[in-house]
Amino acid sequence: MSQFGPSLTINADRLRADFDNLSEIGSTLSGGITRLALSNEDLEARAWFAERIEEAGLLVRDDEVGNLSGVLLSDQPGAKTFLMGSHLDTVPNGGKYDGTIGVLAALECLRTIKEAGLKLPVHLEAINFTDEEGAWHSFFGSMGLVGALEPIHVNDHQKDNGAFRVALFRAGIRPSEIQRARRNPQELAGFLEIHIEQSERLEKSGKQIGIVEGIVGRVSYIFTFYGEAAHAATTAFERQRDALQGAARFISVMHNLARENYPRSIVNCGHVKVSPGAFNVIPSEAALRVDLRHPNSETLAEMESRIIRLAQEIAREYHLSVNADVVLRRTVARMDTKLSEVIASVCDAHQHSHMPLVSYAGHDAQILSTIMPSAMIFVPSKNGLSHNPREYTDWNCVVRGANVMLNTLLKLFAAH
Amino acid sequence: MSQFGPSLTINADRLRADFDNLSEIGSTLSGGITRLALSNEDLEARAWFAERIEEAGLLVRDDEVGNLSGVLLSDQPGAKTFLMGSHLDTVPNGGKYDGTIGVLAALECLRTIKEAGLKLPVHLEAINFTDEEGAWHSFFGSMGLVGALEPIHVNDHQKDNGAFRVALFRAGIRPSEIQRARRNPQELAGFLEIHIEQSERLEKSGKQIGIVEGIVGRVSYIFTFYGEAAHAATTAFERQRDALQGAARFISVMHNLARENYPRSIVNCGHVKVSPGAFNVIPSEAALRVDLRHPNSETLAEMESRIIRLAQEIAREYHLSVNADVVLRRTVARMDTKLSEVIASVCDAHQHSHMPLVSYAGHDAQILSTIMPSAMIFVPSKNGLSHNPREYTDWNCVVRGANVMLNTLLKLFAAH
Repeated sequence: MSQFGPSLTINADRLRADFDNLSEIGSTLSGGITRLALSNEDLEARAWFAERIEEAGLLVRDDEVGNLSGVLLSDQPGAKTFLMGSHLDTVPNGGKYDGTIGVLAALECLRTIKEAGLKLPVHLEAINFTDEEGAWHSFFGSMGLVGALEPIHVNDHQKDNGAFRVALFRAGIRPSEIQRARRNPQELAGFLEIHIEQSERLEKSGKQIGIVEGIVGRVSYIFTFYGEAAHAATTAFERQRDALQGAARFISVMHNLARENYPRSIVNCGHVKVSPGAFNVIPSEAALRVDLRHPNSETLAEMESRIIRLAQEIAREYHLSVNADVVLRRTVARMDTKLSEVIASVCDAHQHSHMPLVSYAGHDAQILSTIMPSAMIFVPSKNGLSHNPREYTDWNCVVRGANVMLNTLLKLFAAH
Repeated sequence: MSQFGPSLTINADRLRADFDNLSEIGSTLSGGITRLALSNEDLEARAWFAERIEEAGLLVRDDEVGNLSGVLLSDQPGAKTFLMGSHLDTVPNGGKYDGTIGVLAALECLRTIKEAGLKLPVHLEAINFTDEEGAWHSFFGSMGLVGALEPIHVNDHQKDNGAFRVALFRAGIRPSEIQRARRNPQELAGFLEIHIEQSERLEKSGKQIGIVEGIVGRVSYIFTFYGEAAHAATTAFERQRDALQGAARFISVMHNLARENYPRSIVNCGHVKVSPGAFNVIPSEAALRVDLRHPNSETLAEMESRIIRLAQEIAREYHLSVNADVVLRRTVARMDTKLSEVIASVCDAHQHSHMPLVSYAGHDAQILSTIMPSAMIFVPSKNGLSHNPREYTDWNCVVRGANVMLNTLLKLFAAH
């Protein structure tokens, strides 16, 4: 491995001790973790993280959206910053690995490099992003860093943001200042994130490392079918305009259409709200929460328009009208080819089997990839479980991922 | 018409004045009525009704479940009581005719007979039943009268009955006394109710009077499909157990099955509750409110079991489980043939066109028919609308119905 400079390994025991200590913050009776963004538990985890940073002799950095980093400064004039990290927040009763290992592995890489006395031409920054999971606003921290947050995100007049604003203030985040968290892309060298895979492709194919090619695009719709409320028992069949019958047919046909025509798509209808909702009243309204994802932008757009047409056709057939409102749109993110090739060569050099993967879940890397070269390393998830107390990754896999990250840094910056 | 004794007509103007005065109690901005059972408006309507009874020189009678009657006593020893009436309560923003015309027409018949000085061999009682519409418990008053209310109806430990009990006390109804409202069937001669049709069969066939043959049986189910919550984007298709996909398929197929095999049935799915309900989480639970009705008991039972089997088959197909809970069951009610024949002969004698009808909506008559001969007279509903401010019946139709009721009484009791 000498062909690309020094070979180091992280301190696996120290990383494990961090992981065990942090897992006590927000632990639940069922063995999971509840560290909702901006909650007491999340603030406690940040304080713990800041202590680890100081203990390691690194610089503590925070910004106007609550992102918290440890920085290992380069002594080269005009050095750019290379970012690594993920998030310490979780979903309610989520797992110990999702997000957390990305932050802890990044910190451990900095400690290892610092202890080895390596001088790199970049500042290294291990970062914890605020609210990746969306307790309040998903990707709040990474969006703030790339300058994608607008005042509307904390001050949307269409909803009550009072509790969100209180939570922000309590965490020391002033809504009026969030746009100042934006960082200059000219000063950033790239971003690297380790994360658990959250599905079974690595496990099933027996590969050790996943190298993310891209993160699927996602669009969330509310489809609302409108009919007419009427007494179910006394309204002649020809006059019935049952919004729920149309919606039910749409749910079935939409899933079949996606399965048959878009094998790489993800389609979910997660909720239906029916009005007025009585046993004996024909539903006048059925509002569906629908999520569509695809790794290819053009295919996602085509699928979207076919599904909207489908809703309109079914509405006509059932004598209804339908509205399709986009409530969230995340474009397909491409990971940086050059960074990914370096990760692959590090895996090869260390005889770690690897495979390219598409990520169907969202990650901070997809936000950061809009302003700088970004890459992701996936480690296997047992049975593909995540957002669940039973989420589990073998510790050797975590250590392997952290070492791949470390050696990727060395290959990128210490080989010269 | 002399072949069956005296011919009288009700005072149409007095009936209209009653209707207009009563329509002011609980009137809504959209021209509808909100007189929920036991509300201030309902209590005001009762007080108004009691005044009309006293004004007419009739006896005011009330019972332990809040039913309120005007009684014209017979002077024959051992006379039974013949009941007529309906309900003054409404659904939220309902119409002016539903229930109301049945109570007012009954009162008007008593006044007309009293003024004519006729001596009948039965006591005549014009009754307003408590909570037909089910603001708290549908058919509360008629069920109390036939002795079908149990302590569980006001003291169900599975739900919070606090507000119901407060409303009862406020209306002077003591929950511990409700079983005393039961009346001895030996002392009751029969029941007659005028009601708006609430559908379009009379209007479409150009008939003036509907004579109800029977009231459909009804069973209300909660079908709950159980799957497993999982991250929609990262869970392999083969592992998905989406409760909502199964439920949606069930809704579609159930409606088709009923339409194709049970042409006289009414099937409605009025609500779906989806858990956990997020865009990106596969639904673990979908609970459906389903109403099934049919005029024939055997067919209703057969349809019920086919629909339950259908739910089980679909659950298997989608790798789900399913539960079917009955939350309400009303057996098919047959109206009394002899009473109905008398109504038909009165219509014939007065050249009123008429037709037999099945009632798909529930009425107090279905409860009363369990202990005494009962019959119903339907008058046309414009466009079949009801439970709606636009509910409308031509006043001539109301007067015609009231006169048919009056002459039915005369033919039954004054021809001898």
